[in-house]
Amino acid sequence: MSSMTGNKIKISVFGQSHSEGIGVVIDSLPAGKKIDLEKVYQFMERRAPGRSILSTQRKEADKPEILSGLVNGVTCGVPLCAVIRNTNTRSADYNNIADTPRPSHADFSGFMRYNGFNDVAGGGHFSGRLTAPLCFAGAVCMQVLEEMGIKIQAHILRIKDVSDESFNPVSVAEMNIGKKPFPVINEKAGEKMRAEIDKARLDCNSVGGIIECAVTGLRAGLGNPMFDGVENMLAKNIFGIPAVKGIEFGNGFGAAGLFGSENNDDFCIENGEIKTVTNNSGGINGGITNGMPIIFRAAFKPTPSIYKEQNSVSIKDKTEKKLKIEGRHDPCIVPRAVPVVEAVTAFTILDMIM
Amino acid sequence: MSSMTGNKIKISVFGQSHSEGIGVVIDSLPAGKKIDLEKVYQFMERRAPGRSILSTQRKEADKPEILSGLVNGVTCGVPLCAVIRNTNTRSADYNNIADTPRPSHADFSGFMRYNGFNDVAGGGHFSGRLTAPLCFAGAVCMQVLEEMGIKIQAHILRIKDVSDESFNPVSVAEMNIGKKPFPVINEKAGEKMRAEIDKARLDCNSVGGIIECAVTGLRAGLGNPMFDGVENMLAKNIFGIPAVKGIEFGNGFGAAGLFGSENNDDFCIENGEIKTVTNNSGGINGGITNGMPIIFRAAFKPTPSIYKEQNSVSIKDKTEKKLKIEGRHDPCIVPRAVPVVEAVTAFTILDMIM
Amino acid sequence: MSSMTGNKIKISVFGQSHSEGIGVVIDSLPAGKKIDLEKVYQFMERRAPGRSILSTQRKEADKPEILSGLVNGVTCGVPLCAVIRNTNTRSADYNNIADTPRPSHADFSGFMRYNGFNDVAGGGHFSGRLTAPLCFAGAVCMQVLEEMGIKIQAHILRIKDVSDESFNPVSVAEMNIGKKPFPVINEKAGEKMRAEIDKARLDCNSVGGIIECAVTGLRAGLGNPMFDGVENMLAKNIFGIPAVKGIEFGNGFGAAGLFGSENNDDFCIENGEIKTVTNNSGGINGGITNGMPIIFRAAFKPTPSIYKEQNSVSIKDKTEKKLKIEGRHDPCIVPRAVPVVEAVTAFTILDMIM
Amino acid sequence: MSSMTGNKIKISVFGQSHSEGIGVVIDSLPAGKKIDLEKVYQFMERRAPGRSILSTQRKEADKPEILSGLVNGVTCGVPLCAVIRNTNTRSADYNNIADTPRPSHADFSGFMRYNGFNDVAGGGHFSGRLTAPLCFAGAVCMQVLEEMGIKIQAHILRIKDVSDESFNPVSVAEMNIGKKPFPVINEKAGEKMRAEIDKARLDCNSVGGIIECAVTGLRAGLGNPMFDGVENMLAKNIFGIPAVKGIEFGNGFGAAGLFGSENNDDFCIENGEIKTVTNNSGGINGGITNGMPIIFRAAFKPTPSIYKEQNSVSIKDKTEKKLKIEGRHDPCIVPRAVPVVEAVTAFTILDMIM
Repeated sequence: MSSMTGNKIKISVFGQSHSEGIGVVIDSLPAGKKIDLEKVYQFMERRAPGRSILSTQRKEADKPEILSGLVNGVTCGVPLCAVIRNTNTRSADYNNIADTPRPSHADFSGFMRYNGFNDVAGGGHFSGRLTAPLCFAGAVCMQVLEEMGIKIQAHILRIKDVSDESFNPVSVAEMNIGKKPFPVINEKAGEKMRAEIDKARLDCNSVGGIIECAVTGLRAGLGNPMFDGVENMLAKNIFGIPAVKGIEFGNGFGAAGLFGSENNDDFCIENGEIKTVTNNSGGINGGITNGMPIIFRAAFKPTPSIYKEQNSVSIKDKTEKKLKIEGRHDPCIVPRAVPVVEAVTAFTILDMIM
Repeated sequence: MSSMTGNKIKISVFGQSHSEGIGVVIDSLPAGKKIDLEKVYQFMERRAPGRSILSTQRKEADKPEILSGLVNGVTCGVPLCAVIRNTNTRSADYNNIADTPRPSHADFSGFMRYNGFNDVAGGGHFSGRLTAPLCFAGAVCMQVLEEMGIKIQAHILRIKDVSDESFNPVSVAEMNIGKKPFPVINEKAGEKMRAEIDKARLDCNSVGGIIECAVTGLRAGLGNPMFDGVENMLAKNIFGIPAVKGIEFGNGFGAAGLFGSENNDDFCIENGEIKTVTNNSGGINGGITNGMPIIFRAAFKPTPSIYKEQNSVSIKDKTEKKLKIEGRHDPCIVPRAVPVVEAVTAFTILDMIM
Repeated sequence: MSSMTGNKIKISVFGQSHSEGIGVVIDSLPAGKKIDLEKVYQFMERRAPGRSILSTQRKEADKPEILSGLVNGVTCGVPLCAVIRNTNTRSADYNNIADTPRPSHADFSGFMRYNGFNDVAGGGHFSGRLTAPLCFAGAVCMQVLEEMGIKIQAHILRIKDVSDESFNPVSVAEMNIGKKPFPVINEKAGEKMRAEIDKARLDCNSVGGIIECAVTGLRAGLGNPMFDGVENMLAKNIFGIPAVKGIEFGNGFGAAGLFGSENNDDFCIENGEIKTVTNNSGGINGGITNGMPIIFRAAFKPTPSIYKEQNSVSIKDKTEKKLKIEGRHDPCIVPRAVPVVEAVTAFTILDMIM
Repeated sequence: MSSMTGNKIKISVFGQSHSEGIGVVIDSLPAGKKIDLEKVYQFMERRAPGRSILSTQRKEADKPEILSGLVNGVTCGVPLCAVIRNTNTRSADYNNIADTPRPSHADFSGFMRYNGFNDVAGGGHFSGRLTAPLCFAGAVCMQVLEEMGIKIQAHILRIKDVSDESFNPVSVAEMNIGKKPFPVINEKAGEKMRAEIDKARLDCNSVGGIIECAVTGLRAGLGNPMFDGVENMLAKNIFGIPAVKGIEFGNGFGAAGLFGSENNDDFCIENGEIKTVTNNSGGINGGITNGMPIIFRAAFKPTPSIYKEQNSVSIKDKTEKKLKIEGRHDPCIVPRAVPVVEAVTAFTILDMIM
């Protein structure tokens, strides 16, 4: 389902790329929280397209309308619904794609899932455009979290072969990276990343990357064992972002190549508090927070929409066919996905806290 | 919670390492399925300890007793409960650990989660022993899946710096690896892996690794968009296995370093069926199966229990303290985790199919 | 939550009486179903106010706008969202009620639930107006059910002391009562009921009643034991309708006064099919359908909004206070609740069938 | 499912009347709660059979064994599992019933649900015996509630045509009825009830009844709007008790015959607290508690197992057939159901409070 049913909060995302509108219902937000909508829109701006030559040129008027859930800007406890209108609706030129699925898109799997009744226009419900309501929901939840002293920030760790510095997993709370237009720690790496993206663009190609995210200010003892831990819930929800193909916490896949003595986080006392010297666990043991920052990384595949000619098929005729994708597409969605990762993290964590 | 509430099947795991017993309730299995308990026990044997010098020497009598849900060996549709007795119960010598948490275990996070009332004996509910009921549940579900022509198999892809060959993601269905005592594709790599583990053991240390798993025989069109797709549900449940710190599908993190033209899976027609030439997507697009094998990899950190002296603290006194772990522990849990990965995959997939 | 999370379908209702809009998201409808929106609007008309002197005079333009989920009038499998605009929004004259709760309304309990941040205007989220999106969702689901030969119909069984005939629990499938403007079996009883309602209206009072509902065309074997049976799920959801205070299936409370020999439903063979001679069970045994019509009754309390002066309090001052309710209110909501009962039944049953 | 998935607590009941054992897993109990098992067993004794001539003569050794979740009698936060052994297992003499369903039992609907693979022996999973684990779970939860000052008590309100006095809905907290062997307020009515039951017994028949339950000590503001309110959740779970065919809150069905002015609960100030003068709402408005006692009534049909000859069918042959039920059965299950109603109420309320 396109609904995230947490223990406390429920998020229902709706809409297709070319339907009348898209949006989200957030059920069971705490009552009495002042929501600064201007800040919400600014957050959403970070994912909006058209900010640079590196992202799709399609202009969106993504300003959401609040239909319910706020009274004078304050949550009243019942479902908050926000709607974003689609201006491009129902264009007729998708019949093409309906029968000729784009490689590594959800066109074919969606066709099979919905017996051919899936909405293909602009990617339908699987479009990256659906991350706008995710950002809305996350931005609202983030304001509630900030009030509790919890901070969520993400940056681009890698684009193709260019890597940024990693977060310092112990002291990341002191960093303030989130709102940069191209969020990296090392600006030089950022420049090289932009060059990689531009190169791919000029070559009618696309590139993938990795986003690293940190949650700081969380108390120890959050989460539940086995299937309902912080790793489980974050993983479940982060895979809800289109193009994510992997997630790892702390040392993650790197831990596979280490000795226990290298990977274990020794305990220490710091200002009378129990801490760990290192944070290879990414802040989580047994699914439960240990008070250190949560650190995770999500892998994004390269945008499957590329302008090079590709091999597809006719679903109807069961014959092979060439496909050339038209329209405007990001050569790399990773920069715009940074706030999306933060947003999904925000509502997942808020759900676990409540 | 220690319960996996799927769309159709529910798995409730219970027990602590030193409680009277451990077990699992599987609610909503399809009725009328003949369960071969001998095969279930053989499957469980693959994870049982004490099979070699490389795993813990503790002897378990892990034969589960079926309390309900079967009539003459056939599922009757109502909850199936299996119980495994613990023979080592309530030993008194864990007071030590109760106040001195083992680095990178759930001792400390569990203490904080349960206000100091967590059961620490043998790791309590967080013990690897709790994977025995997971294996039971998975082995039962796997028999139902096999009847539908669905096959699940996993192998050790990596131990420390030694790698096995990867599954051929297109033709893995033809492989039969699952039941080897030390499941690898390349036996030479397997020997080196065992040497790595033994080296760590002799050094009072431990090592991590990666398990790769493939599901074949699934039709296209399984799963749901956004938060309820196959990747979401597998990720959520696989993180329920102790020591897992990462998961990736298809090219996974590797996709971050590729061009779209390299990562996209071209379509083709094979024997009148729509297939993809490559399977970089790991069988899933938009959360929904595309008919190709599901391929994923899970990263396991090195066993946190090592015999070297480590730095811990006294929770009560808030002072630093040395800790030396006693008892018997696997220097590497990866070999025994292979059937666990298969088992969790089995009940996740069965839930999505029903 | 204002979300009904079934096994398959999820319904999220949002909106307050005076927010910008109200609406519903229906997640996981089957794909490929042609929805006749004209029929949906006609169904919603049955609950719309202002149809007679017996219901509130407020005019609503309740025509919903479909934001997503349909392509050319056919479900595409992803969430369907419908929005109804509120034309009366944010009137300032509710400060009164905010501090002086109306007896037997949710003003006080809502105040306590949301720490005083609840939206009181027009009853907020607890307003009967929120049954419009329920009707929308039900009307859509009913079209899917009708295609399967399943029929849902309800009638007014009682208003104050006037009773209609009960459905014949064995042969109700042949009846066609649903769409009458004042749905009763016995028109004479209907006249007397209307007289009762009018009498209450003239006396600045209100009256309650009972609605009886039948579902026919269902196969035997639907539902699950214990907490997830048809009775459980219908009860859970029917209590989501404002003013419902009781529900009973088959003989219901009447069964308490019977001998087993009177209440048991003997089996018989009819046209080669297994049936029961009577249907005192209301079509359900052990939470599971037995193939006979489902019959249940829901009790509605009298509208708590009456024009007589009542005793209330000032929440702030903790002093007693008189309250006189203004505005327009139905002297009896039972007639308009008939389609609401059918609607909630429709999505509950569809969820259980899928 | 036989699992109650609340917002916080999850209850999984398993077992059949003649399987090896029956039991329950309670997931997510708060940690650190001392559970007095002796009191739990005493509570369970209240539902145990064989206490008088009025209940079934079958002797049970219903003492549950605790497999997990307690350390030295204190909850440790992880799943608590209790198992009760069945001593009568797998008797061969149920082949009869397998093909000849008992009227108004779940034999036929269960057969259809599970394609003939349902366990019929002793009623299988649908047996009243499965209420023993419900009582266990409830008794544990009740101890947690009692610590918070919350009291749950129920009594027999009616057997056939004999009625007990109703609880005083305003002052019921002062009453102490729960532990009487035959729980009624008016002992004379109790005597007449026993006479009714005995009469039915001697006539090879059975009788139904009504149980009334009160929850006191709850704060106002508990519950959620629409589908997740206190009425919804109690109704959903109470219908999990075999033989329940109706539930009503406060005035319930009686409210249908009242004017608003009669049914509304005026507010008043009592010792500086906001109360209502009457409690016709049964403590709940809009699904949310208002601070007054929760009052509800559940209707129980007469035991469907009677010794008189009844009309059944052969499922296989599709022919009509006479059936005479053997074995020992309660002529009225209402007295033994009183603690079951309290138990289900207890875990439902605890789930909503946490």
